[in-house]
Amino acid sequence: MSIKIGIYGYGNLGKGVECAIKNSPDMELVAVFTRRDPETVKINTKTALVCSDDKIPEYKDKIDVMILCGGSAKDLPLQSPEIAKSFCLVDSFDTHTNIPVHFANVDAEAQKSGKVAIISAGWDPGMFSVNRLYAEAVLPCGADYTFWGKGVSQGHSDAIRRIDGVVDARQYTIPIDEALNAVRSGACPSLSTGEKHRRECFVVAEDGADKQRIEKEIKEMPNYFADYETTVHFISLEELKRDHSKIPHGGFVIRSGKTGFDLENSHIIEYSLKLDSNPEFTASVIVSFARAAHRMYNEGFKGCKTVFDIPPAYLSPESHSDIIKRLL
Amino acid sequence: MSIKIGIYGYGNLGKGVECAIKNSPDMELVAVFTRRDPETVKINTKTALVCSDDKIPEYKDKIDVMILCGGSAKDLPLQSPEIAKSFCLVDSFDTHTNIPVHFANVDAEAQKSGKVAIISAGWDPGMFSVNRLYAEAVLPCGADYTFWGKGVSQGHSDAIRRIDGVVDARQYTIPIDEALNAVRSGACPSLSTGEKHRRECFVVAEDGADKQRIEKEIKEMPNYFADYETTVHFISLEELKRDHSKIPHGGFVIRSGKTGFDLENSHIIEYSLKLDSNPEFTASVIVSFARAAHRMYNEGFKGCKTVFDIPPAYLSPESHSDIIKRLL
Repeated sequence: MSIKIGIYGYGNLGKGVECAIKNSPDMELVAVFTRRDPETVKINTKTALVCSDDKIPEYKDKIDVMILCGGSAKDLPLQSPEIAKSFCLVDSFDTHTNIPVHFANVDAEAQKSGKVAIISAGWDPGMFSVNRLYAEAVLPCGADYTFWGKGVSQGHSDAIRRIDGVVDARQYTIPIDEALNAVRSGACPSLSTGEKHRRECFVVAEDGADKQRIEKEIKEMPNYFADYETTVHFISLEELKRDHSKIPHGGFVIRSGKTGFDLENSHIIEYSLKLDSNPEFTASVIVSFARAAHRMYNEGFKGCKTVFDIPPAYLSPESHSDIIKRLL
Repeated sequence: MSIKIGIYGYGNLGKGVECAIKNSPDMELVAVFTRRDPETVKINTKTALVCSDDKIPEYKDKIDVMILCGGSAKDLPLQSPEIAKSFCLVDSFDTHTNIPVHFANVDAEAQKSGKVAIISAGWDPGMFSVNRLYAEAVLPCGADYTFWGKGVSQGHSDAIRRIDGVVDARQYTIPIDEALNAVRSGACPSLSTGEKHRRECFVVAEDGADKQRIEKEIKEMPNYFADYETTVHFISLEELKRDHSKIPHGGFVIRSGKTGFDLENSHIIEYSLKLDSNPEFTASVIVSFARAAHRMYNEGFKGCKTVFDIPPAYLSPESHSDIIKRLL
């Protein structure tokens, strides 16, 4: 019997989850829940419903796992604990510093309800985190490095859009090749985030706007750009739509470590992603963890879990003997 | 209190395990067990004992996890089930096709004894397997590719040594760049093992041996070389010792997959290893899984486990809240 899924929130991530469910034969999308007027939300899955989110309680016994696709700033801190009262769930809460608090809040509810709630599933946090953990456990004497990109940073693009005279903007975070190569050489350099990445901005300015001032404001923006090598290109709205409408991303987790009685041997573990669509890949990770949440719940587990707590076998739709035979 | 470890078998892998324990502050090597006369075996850890393997039963309550460092052909099929009667254990059984039988044999004993026995921990099987599983679960529509090397293949080196007139030999397995690049492009090519790898052989021949015949015998050897692009270099024993005494290895697990409602977006997940010392890295993986075996046993788990069954958190010596804070 297929795993019945609900999607809460239908933006880019929610649409990606819908696609990932379509591509998972063991799953079925039951309904998309939205805060908008359901009449205005058109989804691609003909067999699923669109419902107002105040109908969620009625689906308590009709959905195995609810996938939360809201934002980490305002939606998930409230929604995840609330949904955990009645549903197994997966979210992709990605504000790294607030994860311990989010974990505690979701765990309190999931322990009471007996449900399994997996938080912070995606690629970072998510697959990158798992790879940082495995690599550090295997090579305790060493250092790890996370590089992001080349990819669109939504937060940085938004920051540019808030500058006076900017119509639209797209910001790419790009790993610096020299830094990547230094890490891969095993040299264990000490590198700040700004020494690992550069930022490339494509900006559409209003007619007659002062481009020099805009460029200066971007490059001097604290936290976002001031500590980075930043390039700014002014382009037309047509060019932005034509050349920068996709949402690619990716990155690298590299651990450089030593072994040997006197640490005489060097090793490099590298995990990398090259993604055409950041939200669709994130959604694909989430959906594999939804499978795990459902299985763990059926086996009597409960409470909040992270990607660190899930045996990899639970992510696969295949039997244990099949994965041993085919993948081990 | 530190985790008390025994090593059974003291070849390259056993020595690597000894190093990995030294580099793990939460572990302590209690004893090395050997089939040889213990007087003839010198180990590096001053605080540990060397014992004949017939003394193993006396250590039942003095060792938390026994690490088996014998060979997969003859040692582990007998030793792992036997040791599982009295100890938690980790082995690196690596004959892929026989893993299901080995799993069943070890599981039967570990279920009876209530111990946790982790088999086939290393990098392939091991970390490569885990990465194949994660990548397939996340991108079900796609194909995966495992490349080995550049590294020394012990089996192929041995096969060359058995040829008449050969004094010594070293064989490197090397991924073919064009195949790697085709996979990374997302083209999903269909590739045989021979289309993914070439073989480079360094051979020391006896004085006056017929080198043309030796080269022909190598290149035409079925299974080992006949299906591969193979190069043979004749060198002196001094050159072999000087330039080819290390045991490097590595490789790549790449999954190329599609997402989207009509599979319109492509993604590449790549995991790679570049290892100075194959046995020391394998040993480091094993030791991290020994930590997991001990913890799972303490929490009441029992039976045979693989890398697929271990939540990543169990590999780390740190607390759950610390790894969430620092690595998620």
